[in-house]
Amino acid sequence: MAKDFTKRAEDYSKWYNDLVVKADLAENSGVRGCMVIKPYGFAIWEKMQAELDKMFKATGHVNAYFPLFIPKSYLSKEADHVEGFAKECAVVTHYRLKNSEDGKGVEVDPKAKLEEELIVRPTSETIIWDTYKGWIQSYRDLPILVNQWANVVRWEMRTRLFLRTAEFLWQEGHTAHATRKEAIQETEQMINIYATFAEKFMAMPVIQGLKSANERFAGALETYCIEALMQDGKALQAGTSHFLGQNFAKAFDVKFANKEGNLEYVWATSWGVSTRLMGALIMTHSDDNGLVLPPKLAPFQVVIVPIYKGEEQLAQISEEALKIKADLEDKGVSVKFDKRDTHKPGWKFAEYEFKGVPVRIAIGPRDLENGTVEVARRDTLEKETLQVSDLGNKISNLLEQIQENLYQKAATFRDDNTHHANNWEDFKELIANDAGFVYAHWDGTSETEQKIKEETKATIRCIPINNKLKKGSCIYSGNSSTQKVLFAKSY
Amino acid sequence: MAKDFTKRAEDYSKWYNDLVVKADLAENSGVRGCMVIKPYGFAIWEKMQAELDKMFKATGHVNAYFPLFIPKSYLSKEADHVEGFAKECAVVTHYRLKNSEDGKGVEVDPKAKLEEELIVRPTSETIIWDTYKGWIQSYRDLPILVNQWANVVRWEMRTRLFLRTAEFLWQEGHTAHATRKEAIQETEQMINIYATFAEKFMAMPVIQGLKSANERFAGALETYCIEALMQDGKALQAGTSHFLGQNFAKAFDVKFANKEGNLEYVWATSWGVSTRLMGALIMTHSDDNGLVLPPKLAPFQVVIVPIYKGEEQLAQISEEALKIKADLEDKGVSVKFDKRDTHKPGWKFAEYEFKGVPVRIAIGPRDLENGTVEVARRDTLEKETLQVSDLGNKISNLLEQIQENLYQKAATFRDDNTHHANNWEDFKELIANDAGFVYAHWDGTSETEQKIKEETKATIRCIPINNKLKKGSCIYSGNSSTQKVLFAKSY
Repeated sequence: MAKDFTKRAEDYSKWYNDLVVKADLAENSGVRGCMVIKPYGFAIWEKMQAELDKMFKATGHVNAYFPLFIPKSYLSKEADHVEGFAKECAVVTHYRLKNSEDGKGVEVDPKAKLEEELIVRPTSETIIWDTYKGWIQSYRDLPILVNQWANVVRWEMRTRLFLRTAEFLWQEGHTAHATRKEAIQETEQMINIYATFAEKFMAMPVIQGLKSANERFAGALETYCIEALMQDGKALQAGTSHFLGQNFAKAFDVKFANKEGNLEYVWATSWGVSTRLMGALIMTHSDDNGLVLPPKLAPFQVVIVPIYKGEEQLAQISEEALKIKADLEDKGVSVKFDKRDTHKPGWKFAEYEFKGVPVRIAIGPRDLENGTVEVARRDTLEKETLQVSDLGNKISNLLEQIQENLYQKAATFRDDNTHHANNWEDFKELIANDAGFVYAHWDGTSETEQKIKEETKATIRCIPINNKLKKGSCIYSGNSSTQKVLFAKSY
Repeated sequence: MAKDFTKRAEDYSKWYNDLVVKADLAENSGVRGCMVIKPYGFAIWEKMQAELDKMFKATGHVNAYFPLFIPKSYLSKEADHVEGFAKECAVVTHYRLKNSEDGKGVEVDPKAKLEEELIVRPTSETIIWDTYKGWIQSYRDLPILVNQWANVVRWEMRTRLFLRTAEFLWQEGHTAHATRKEAIQETEQMINIYATFAEKFMAMPVIQGLKSANERFAGALETYCIEALMQDGKALQAGTSHFLGQNFAKAFDVKFANKEGNLEYVWATSWGVSTRLMGALIMTHSDDNGLVLPPKLAPFQVVIVPIYKGEEQLAQISEEALKIKADLEDKGVSVKFDKRDTHKPGWKFAEYEFKGVPVRIAIGPRDLENGTVEVARRDTLEKETLQVSDLGNKISNLLEQIQENLYQKAATFRDDNTHHANNWEDFKELIANDAGFVYAHWDGTSETEQKIKEETKATIRCIPINNKLKKGSCIYSGNSSTQKVLFAKSY
């Protein structure tokens, strides 16, 4: 499997695409730009969903569901928003097909034209704030802390599996608050949750920060983000949380009576992560042997492969394997026992290595005699022989070690590939060499940011939240700057 | 809340709609025919999803995700399928909007017309079988046991919240098998799972059976269904499982090499339940006082309401309430403690009764002295005073009793409203009076079924699976019949 597999150093982009397809994560469909998420890939996404959903609910959020379609006129109500989203959307214009006159197939029935076109949601602020208008009268109705798991569509011209697809899956939180302060707290709380999820479950270190005006969500006053560094030196935006101010409340006329009985516009946030996280996960940990998964998100954490000749040996080994499986499951470890007779052990070893299963246990006849198993870990490819006694605890500990090792490895990579540029020449050279994150002084203007982007393809990934303020001069314009910001080329 | 609430006997349809809206389950959106599922309603759907998903996985199924859009040409590949679904679908024809020339809003950009129109999936057989073609080469690749949780769109002209909406949420299983026998077993297994779910979790008795040819899924050789009886004497189809034969394999040219190396077409099934189950749940149990929920699907099973004067009393009662809450949660009971000071106890009692919370616990100062609480059950509206000691077990038992009582009540209603018509006059009268399920002999022809439908609006709900064969003559045509089948007017 790994033999006709492109190496990262040869062609990183091809390596990524081959990996996604060959590890059975996703594939392109017959619909341009839309992917099929295959069962193995979807199982990882389900684990992400389950953990995130738990974190949302633990902070008081509830789920709901809003329409897939947005009337065209809704999009126009918030000026920045329509600029950002109208340019790349799927438009429903008709509601019926009819048999073709030539008798071959079906065609759009011109009589079934919609009076107002419907847009397949690229994001749901407009339809949700149109709904919230009916839900909010008084301060007693606030806050509203709602999340939605949904599919959305943005008509991207160049698509890549998980990273940029016309349709993708995501969650979008949309909250309504009585005060500016509370809305900002919510925005910050959610970016913190995303950062915790990325680091604790994805084993992916991230930098939290604010977007510059150029990179803000269309309709937001502030966009908070988490940024991760991929192995090719490019940044990937892994989650965003927007403080929307009163923009959508004003666009949809949503006011509440405060405790004094006066009407005020409601304050809003929205925040989301998507199946793009799958791309981030893959690119953070995987290697030239295939996928590497952190144990906390692996569809199964351990695979047991029997090595046997004949039915009788298989029966003996199976008995032992099922005991081990039960012991591991008692410890909360998920296990697959693969005793298929259609494939040889060597084939299975290659398969599970390629699919990133964190731990492989092999049991042969000699192991049975000795009360041992062979344990291989995917992250380091190390093997060791372990006694079966107390294997449940040993494997639990090993999984924790792997989770921690993956995080540390990624953090070290990130730190090794983070630079400071003190002048324009250094900056250009670092960016041209895909050297990773580059901190540099910036004069704070959109014009400068735009010019840097045009000349180097690098953008400001964020203004890190814990940044130290330190005066300097902008690497591009030479004008004064209050702090360094984080630049990189990005996905 | 219940005071301006329509009674069932006055106007059943209005009762239903009022209930859905006033109990915060769902509401109509600004998009024609599309609903907003509100948090309280969505929490019930999430419980349904969780239980069904567990049952699917326990029988070897895995989840995946396929595109929202289906190219127009795909729909045409299976002749019956396109007839069934092309007539009411949302058609995407363009992929961009542009600023209007009058400067007001946005309009479809005529330059961004798709070469081939895309249909928003009304069901996914075609896109999935187009995908399976790439997944299946040999018998080793079979079976494929995949499920998808998704939104679908069917452009219905008359819509009703949950029961019939343009967009709805559902799951659709799509399986591929090497043999006809295995596919039929799968079809039957899944309708059994739906029946078990309906009876065990929804407390809703159902009749399993086969659809007549007229009522079959477009593209299926057999459609199995579960049918439930609503309180107004109408039937509701609550789930279907289709044996698709080799129709889709032939349409999309999906063959596999069997063990002997010969190529054969693959056998298929598909099966689904949708947010329509929410309508079935509501109409099966609710009453003139509002929603009634079976404990196994209630967002929270118990609500604790404190009755107090002043902060100090509230503090004392809260302490006791939180102990009770912890005790109940230890027993696996979900509890909400509502100590909001913005609403009075009487208002809260009315609210939770209307929202169908199975058990309400009230605690006042005298209860504190006596070590008691007042427990009210929603199904019978009975109240009793219970000692706090061992309350966890008592409430657990009570919830089981309520679940069982709801099932029995619904089963009794169903049995009381099931009739046998031995001639056409009796049949017409029973149907005209909305008398419920009517068993009657039928000659087995589509023509007769069609005429009965035209004259009475009744359709064959199913040919029950456990039907006894017994000869007779068709109530309509007088021709010979091998068995009685189940008729009713339906949703």
